[in-house]
Parts: sequence; structure tokens; C-alpha cells
Amino acid sequence: MTSIDLNADLGEGFGHWRLTDDERLLAVVTSANVACGFHAGDAPTMRRVCELAAARGVRIGAQVSYRDLAGFGRRAMDVPPAELTAEVAYQIGALEVFARAAGTRVAYVKPHGALYNRVVRDEEQARAVVDGVVLADPTLPVLGLPGSRLLELAAKAGLPAVEEAFADRAYTDEGTLVARGQEGALVTDPGAVLERSVDLARSGEVVTLSGRRIAMRARSLCLHGDTPGAVELARRVRDALEASGVRVEAFT
Amino acid sequence: MTSIDLNADLGEGFGHWRLTDDERLLAVVTSANVACGFHAGDAPTMRRVCELAAARGVRIGAQVSYRDLAGFGRRAMDVPPAELTAEVAYQIGALEVFARAAGTRVAYVKPHGALYNRVVRDEEQARAVVDGVVLADPTLPVLGLPGSRLLELAAKAGLPAVEEAFADRAYTDEGTLVARGQEGALVTDPGAVLERSVDLARSGEVVTLSGRRIAMRARSLCLHGDTPGAVELARRVRDALEASGVRVEAFT
Amino acid sequence: MTSIDLNADLGEGFGHWRLTDDERLLAVVTSANVACGFHAGDAPTMRRVCELAAARGVRIGAQVSYRDLAGFGRRAMDVPPAELTAEVAYQIGALEVFARAAGTRVAYVKPHGALYNRVVRDEEQARAVVDGVVLADPTLPVLGLPGSRLLELAAKAGLPAVEEAFADRAYTDEGTLVARGQEGALVTDPGAVLERSVDLARSGEVVTLSGRRIAMRARSLCLHGDTPGAVELARRVRDALEASGVRVEAFT
Amino acid sequence: MTSIDLNADLGEGFGHWRLTDDERLLAVVTSANVACGFHAGDAPTMRRVCELAAARGVRIGAQVSYRDLAGFGRRAMDVPPAELTAEVAYQIGALEVFARAAGTRVAYVKPHGALYNRVVRDEEQARAVVDGVVLADPTLPVLGLPGSRLLELAAKAGLPAVEEAFADRAYTDEGTLVARGQEGALVTDPGAVLERSVDLARSGEVVTLSGRRIAMRARSLCLHGDTPGAVELARRVRDALEASGVRVEAFT
Repeated sequence: MTSIDLNADLGEGFGHWRLTDDERLLAVVTSANVACGFHAGDAPTMRRVCELAAARGVRIGAQVSYRDLAGFGRRAMDVPPAELTAEVAYQIGALEVFARAAGTRVAYVKPHGALYNRVVRDEEQARAVVDGVVLADPTLPVLGLPGSRLLELAAKAGLPAVEEAFADRAYTDEGTLVARGQEGALVTDPGAVLERSVDLARSGEVVTLSGRRIAMRARSLCLHGDTPGAVELARRVRDALEASGVRVEAFT
Repeated sequence: MTSIDLNADLGEGFGHWRLTDDERLLAVVTSANVACGFHAGDAPTMRRVCELAAARGVRIGAQVSYRDLAGFGRRAMDVPPAELTAEVAYQIGALEVFARAAGTRVAYVKPHGALYNRVVRDEEQARAVVDGVVLADPTLPVLGLPGSRLLELAAKAGLPAVEEAFADRAYTDEGTLVARGQEGALVTDPGAVLERSVDLARSGEVVTLSGRRIAMRARSLCLHGDTPGAVELARRVRDALEASGVRVEAFT
Repeated sequence: MTSIDLNADLGEGFGHWRLTDDERLLAVVTSANVACGFHAGDAPTMRRVCELAAARGVRIGAQVSYRDLAGFGRRAMDVPPAELTAEVAYQIGALEVFARAAGTRVAYVKPHGALYNRVVRDEEQARAVVDGVVLADPTLPVLGLPGSRLLELAAKAGLPAVEEAFADRAYTDEGTLVARGQEGALVTDPGAVLERSVDLARSGEVVTLSGRRIAMRARSLCLHGDTPGAVELARRVRDALEASGVRVEAFT
Repeated sequence: MTSIDLNADLGEGFGHWRLTDDERLLAVVTSANVACGFHAGDAPTMRRVCELAAARGVRIGAQVSYRDLAGFGRRAMDVPPAELTAEVAYQIGALEVFARAAGTRVAYVKPHGALYNRVVRDEEQARAVVDGVVLADPTLPVLGLPGSRLLELAAKAGLPAVEEAFADRAYTDEGTLVARGQEGALVTDPGAVLERSVDLARSGEVVTLSGRRIAMRARSLCLHGDTPGAVELARRVRDALEASGVRVEAFT
């Protein structure tokens, strides 16, 4: 029987501001990418999300980011590698304290926003992130884009490298994501998202923007919770997966 | 044979700015209060200080603070207890990652600046700090002022409560610190600081501002490194202690 | 014919986060208290709010705050007066650039959150705020609580002191606000809020928590836009005022 | 008689941290690039530097930066243009309040660090900076590198574009700065710096790294104050210029 992990970003508020409906999203996903204070996420929020996730048996991952609250971590930054390495480790350590207090552990690391995109190709920053993970815990899995420098270097460093896919993003024939600016980059039809989710999980393949079927091995599917209707759609994706016989569970 | 611990604040730079001569101060103290990013201390500095401290066998403590870079943690803040608890735990966790990477552990917690002063009497904030320490690690010693609410509540919560004294601050007959604004509050004569250090360590007593001798049980002596000549004076305090037969070593 | 000003907080988002529906609220109020970056409000938001306000003829005020993004300016802070003075001026100057670019000027200053509450009684901080306003522009009106130290010192410094009232807060017989924690402190019934608004504007009196009528001279009424239904209620307050023959216009 | 302006970065402390000896540097330069709070510079420091500069008749410029205290504005950031424009205007406005309070005005704008380097070639960000200056004041001069996109677009927008040169940096035959990493990029010999300063001011030419003389029209010379001995060298540069008959005065 096929199984797949569902991950989403959580705890992305800051102080007085809230973004995602953490409680409802935690009822859907199996892995929670928790903001660690650099692009979002304050200490009380991190604590609460860890408690809620642990209570539901949802796995906790550290969503590490550039230090950029004003830009929500979405602005690429030329951070020197030694600095980035230390900042990645700092964020993991800060989250770990709340994961442990909730009776569990940080179970993986996923870069956020501009850092996520940067480490697809930037060797120096990818290595810096991997070094930061190793510094914090040399057994922590890293979640990222298939074929990314990040996953390649993580594997070389002995870290479990876990690929994720997106049911609401279009793919090129080479298996990379169609850039956001381009026509057709986003799959906005809910029905199509459901269909692509089930297809991905069952066949390990995805239909590209040009209409070809290509292999897309992904052990996790990334869902979103920060737009209107997003949590409902995430819920429907999970239901559709389970209805089609796919087991929804955290990657191992 | 009498022994005493020497502690000082380290890693109090931020980004491009430096404050203390960490390397030279680490050659003097036995316990390093490391800034954790809230009043000072960025991730690369925390990593470096932990590595240097571990290499020298100096113990690492988390110097937790209000979130106040602009005020260097010296401005009292009415932080709601749940927030303060989570922020204390966050800081300990962030430092722990670098202590572990350097082959050691965070060995104690000491509040900084305005928070240090506040928890002398403020029950609510003292409890919030203790809760944060317990959340992070229910075996961590807490370093603070003798007679403070902080140490009282720490002891009640089962945390080792460690008293510290200041050789460069005047004491009242009640054993509290003379407020900074008052005449004679600071002991500025280096010779007097040396003499008071040795006296404190050997006799467990201190001469108050009015000239009386009172008991002052302190397992640690707090030294400073952030003013001109401070590191030299700290060095001379250590030398004087050792010359007088006091063993300088981390508290147990 | 009686007239009253309606003011509300605007532009209280930060980066990726939004809080108030600025556009709809600007269709209701005559004075916009614009966040200046210290508790909320980033530069692009400040620019946009100033443009929208100017286009509608809504007056722009600087809502100055403690530097406290994480606490939304709601945590009292012991900021030294010279620092507070400079920070108040800094915020006014930053907003002024956008007000001017939109063809208008910053027309008044109103402290936010914990600072607003503090300067009701704290002479030192009230004076620091007044000094900051004078530094920026010695002709700027200051908006605050009747009887507050802030307004008293503002008037002494030659600044126009403008009192405001709250239709959704209960008053004591002495004319001060009933503290938020207390029973009955908030007027939550929309009908009561409408009635109190009209009563305040027309009679210059308010019914206290104990049922007495007392004088409450206020040239401005503070409305809220940050809770569900708040903008609708603000709209209804304006409609009710106008229906009762009160002219809604900026204070002069 | 030839004249030249001398500019340097000032007020680059933050909170408890200090970097430059502002008072001594103000005795040397004719134009002060004042940090505005984004890479360094808090409100009290900005106020004090403006007062000192005004008292000495030194002109005040806004040194605008990316929002990056942790990186001192030295990390390139992909800030969306509209955001950058607003942030530039915000910084100018905040400084203007202190310049006016000191009886003068912000007289020019100079980008700092990574932003300075970025706008040499990046059309989008250069335009965003120019837009921000125009938003704040469409008559403000912009100080930058000869041949930079920034100065080109500033001139097109009707802003006075002022070129600056560096006596302690090597130039290529094309008149661009030799990149910092490269051999010989920095002129470290004080005698050579003095000689190059006088040569630049008198001849309008500079000797390149390869030994050729090329034209280098610069109305301002950038001095540094943030390294040991830097202020002394700056003083000697000024003395040497005056001794050689060059008038040291603010650009017009």
C-alpha cells in the first residue's frame, strides 16, 4: 500500500499578528513546518504549535529562514556561509526546546521562502544550511526539492534527504517547478489539485505543463494554509488520498 | 580549602558590533554568561564563544533577557508571564545547540540587565523565568541575587539556586545592593575590589556601606569585562584569590 | 450645530501581516492614527495609507509607540526620557515624508498602546513624548485622554491638546476609564455603543458605570477596526451621529 | 582654486554599541553620512550627530540602507522596488526631523554598504532608490560612484548627481573600483593615501592599479572612521589637502 506524508507551514504569526489557522491545519497534515522566529514565529506561538502537534501525533519540523521578519523570509539575501550555518542551528535549537517540552523532538528541517529557492542551485548556501543542520543534529532529515543542491549535499553529509512535491504547482518536463511569474505556474482549480495529489501519491508521476507524464518521486506533499479556502482544500486533498487507498503518514 | 566560581557576561556583541574581549575574559572566568540574541549575541558569536569556552573548560550559562536589542536589555518591560516563559526557554534552547556542538551543555541560567533586577522582587516575572528554565531543562541551576524571589522560586521548583556576589558593588546592612544612583554604590578603586573579592571568598562576609560586616554566602563572584581596564582587573581578582589560597573553580 | 472627529488606528500591519481593513475604515473616520514602524507599520504600508487618507481628505496623525514589534507596543517599558523623545520625533519624521508626498502633512500625534496608558500618569514619560513632538514640530496637536499628564504637559508646551473619548469603554464617576480587567469595562452591545456615541457628541456627557451622568468634553471619538465586525460598527456609529444632526469632521 | 568635499559615515552605533568616534570625525569632514536606523543608527544617536554636525557647519546626508541590523547592511538583498522606495523615503524623513531640529536640513542621500554596491549596476534597485529620494524631496543631491546606474538615473530624474572617489581603494583602467577580494584592492600605506588624495583633488586624475593615469572627476572624497587609526589618517588627509592649496568644503 502506498503512503505519503503531508507537510504544511505552521506558526507563521508574529506577536499580535496571525496568519494560518494552526489548529485546523494540524488536523490535516502529518508533518508541521514550524516557523522558528526568523521570518515568523515567536516563542509563545512555537510553544503552542509544538504542544498541539505533539498532542495530535503530528511530526515537528524546523522551518529555518533568513533573518527577515519585514520580508517574511521571501527576499533572497547574500548571507555569508558561516553566519547562515550558525543561524540555521540557532533556529533548530530554539524549536527543539519546545518540541522536547511537548514530549517529542524536532524531526526534520525545511528551509523557508527565499532560502528554500536559493539552495536549489546555490552550492555555497546549500552547504551552509547542511552544515547548520549537522551542527544541531547529524541525524536530522532535510526536506526539499528533488534534484536540489540542498538534498544532494545533505545526502553526502549523511543526512536523510527527503523529496517533496507540490500538487498546486506546474512542473517543467525536466521536473523543475515552473517559475511563479509564468503562465500556468499555479494550479488553481481545486479539482485539479485533488487529482494531481492522488496521481502523484499513487503513480510517483506528474503531468507537466506541456502534458507529458514524468517520474516525480516524492515522499511528502506540501500543502498550503495561508490563503482563503486553503485549509479546506488541504482537508479535501487528505480525504481524496485516503479514499483512493493511499495511507497518509509521516515519512520515515 | 575555600573555592569560588567567577562569572562574567560574554558574547555581548551583535552583528558588526563588539563589546567585550571574549577571548581574554575566558582566560579568567570559570563560568561564561553567554548572551542569547535577545539583548545581544548573534548566532555566529554564540557559536564562537561556546567553542572557546568549551576549549578552555569554562562552563557555559544562558544569559536570558527581555527582547530588547535597542535597549541592551536594560529597560524594564511588562512582558506577560506566558510570553516571558517561552522567551526564556527559546533562548536556552538556541544556546544549547552551540554548547552541544562544542561538546558540552548549557550548565546554568542567569537573567540579564533589567530582567535580573526585576526578578529580585517581582513574583510574577520571577515565576515566569523559573517556568521557562523548567520548560527547557528541570535540572538547570539558576544564578542570581541572594534573597531574590528568583532564587526562592527556583529552589521551590527543584532547580539548584546559586547565589552570586559583586566585589565592585556596595551592600546595605540588609545585604542588598546599594542602588546605582546612590553615593558610593560602585566600588571603583581596584585595590578595594581585590580586597573585597578575597574577603568575600574566604570569610563569606562583606563590609557594608555603613562599615558593618555581614554574612554574604555566594558561590560565585560576578566580574565585568565591558569597561576599559575591566579585563585586567578581572585577571588581578583571580590572581589575588589564588594567591590567598582560594581555589577558583565552577560552582557544583 | 455640534461636530465631532472620529479617529481610528490604521496601517497596523507589518511586512506580510495585515490587521485592519484600512480602505474601509478610511471611509468612516476623519482622522487616521497611522502606525509608524515601532509597534506596527512598515514603510510601504505607511505610504499607501497616507495616499489613501489624502485622497479621501482624512487627516493623518502619527501613532507613536515604544519600539516593540513583538509586543505590538502593548508592553510598558522603562525607556529613558531622552531616548523616548528621540524615538517619538523619529516616528513623526518618518511618517511626515509620506504625508507630504501625498500632498498633505502630519496633523497630530497620538501615543499607542502601553505608551498611551503610561503617559496618563507618568510625568517623566509624558514630558518625553511632548518633547519629542516639539522637536518634530512645535505646532502639532496631541491627542489623548482628558485629564492625562500628556495633555496637561502638551498644553503647557504650547501644543494644542485634544481630548478623545471612547463609546465602547465604561467610565468611572471620576471620568477615568474602567480598567480593562474589571467587570463591565467594555461596552460590547452595538446598540449601546451607538447610543453612547450620539449622547457623547450631542451632550458632552457620558453615563458612568455606576449610572451617573458626568461631563466628558471630547473633540474626538476613538473607534476600532481590528476586531470582527468592528468596521461595520464604526460605519454605524458615523451614520447614527449624522442622522442625529452631529457633523462628523476633523477637529480644528 | 580647487576645492573638494570630504565625506564619512557617522552615527553607526546602535543602542549600547558604538563604532565610530563621531566627534573627532566631525572635526575633519565637510559632509556626514548619517546612519538612519536600518543598518545602524538609533534615534538618540541620530539626534546627537545632527546637533554636533550642525554646530560645526558639517553638512548632513542620509545614509540609507537595506533593513539589516544583524548584517550591518552589508548583505545584498532582493528587496522589491516599491518596498525599497518606501524604505529609502522613510529613512530620509526620520533623519530630516533631527536635521531640522538642529537648524539645518538633510542635504544629500548616499546609499550604504550592499545597497551602495548593488545600485552601481542594478537598474531596478537604482531606480527604486532614486524614486525614494524623489518621494522625500525632489531636489536632494545623490552621492555615489561615477558611472553608476544610481547617478545616471538620479540625473535623469532631475536630482543633482555627485560623484565621489576613494583614496584608499585601487581603480581599474576603466575607472571602476578593484573588487575587495583582489590583490592590491586596498591602499593601506598612509603615505600613499595622502598622496592619492591630493593628486585626485588637484588633477582630477587617479593612477590605476596597472599604473596608468585616468580621469576621475569626483566632487567628494570618501574617508573612513571605523578602523584603528582611521580618524588620524582622515585628519592627515585633510591637512595634506589644505597644505597643497586645495580648499576643503562641502560640494555645492
